[in-house]
Amino acid sequence: MEQENCVFCKIVSGEIPSSTIYEDNDFKVILDISPATKGHAIIIPKNHAKNVFELSEEDASKVFVVAKKVATAMKEALKCDGFNILQNNEEVAGQTVFHFHMHLIPRYKEDKVTIKWCDEHYVGEDIGIIAEKIKKCL
Amino acid sequence: MEQENCVFCKIVSGEIPSSTIYEDNDFKVILDISPATKGHAIIIPKNHAKNVFELSEEDASKVFVVAKKVATAMKEALKCDGFNILQNNEEVAGQTVFHFHMHLIPRYKEDKVTIKWCDEHYVGEDIGIIAEKIKKCL
Repeated sequence: MEQENCVFCKIVSGEIPSSTIYEDNDFKVILDISPATKGHAIIIPKNHAKNVFELSEEDASKVFVVAKKVATAMKEALKCDGFNILQNNEEVAGQTVFHFHMHLIPRYKEDKVTIKWCDEHYVGEDIGIIAEKIKKCL
Repeated sequence: MEQENCVFCKIVSGEIPSSTIYEDNDFKVILDISPATKGHAIIIPKNHAKNVFELSEEDASKVFVVAKKVATAMKEALKCDGFNILQNNEEVAGQTVFHFHMHLIPRYKEDKVTIKWCDEHYVGEDIGIIAEKIKKCL
């Protein structure tokens, strides 16, 4: 399942060393070496998938259980004030390594993380039309 | 399980109307009425939990399966260029409604979403010390 030249596959195999905080049959959780905040970790599935759209159903059913478990330990260990769980897909969304991963970002008052958007507004029937479009694909 | 005065509990029960795009026994997925981008949706578990730390193991094992399923339909319906899946816990992390929810944010070139941080750097043995601290809580 390892993909050639994939940094995260090499971290999973141990070819590239990492600060591993959790590992089971399906996932490895490592500390990010260029963290957004102190303790920023990344959940990496052992099976290569490019993004959420390629992730197996089995890994999808396990990844957030790992997120909850590790985030709970991080909150206790780091005494952070809050927590973001973030998963980016494609370059426009901030994905830089094209092996699915989920960020566990402990938040502290006055840290340097910015997650924001300008609220847009739907006009007239737009929200209904969009809802129908999505439902047709489900 | 409904919590008094919880907006998302009222959306789940139907007391507050919403543009629902998906529903099963455990979750309701609605379009955000003040979306970050066109089609921005929110996954809401029917059982009230304040945040990821209170989420049941069962809901944790199902929520990302729903995320993958609905995100895949949204990508097809909306022809977006990328996708963020974001789950905020506590005010400092951007949580505004204190009933667990997961954002499904379709991304488009030149949209107005900002997710960024200044990379911090660990000095000396710090990363190892932090890894050990977290592992002790796991």
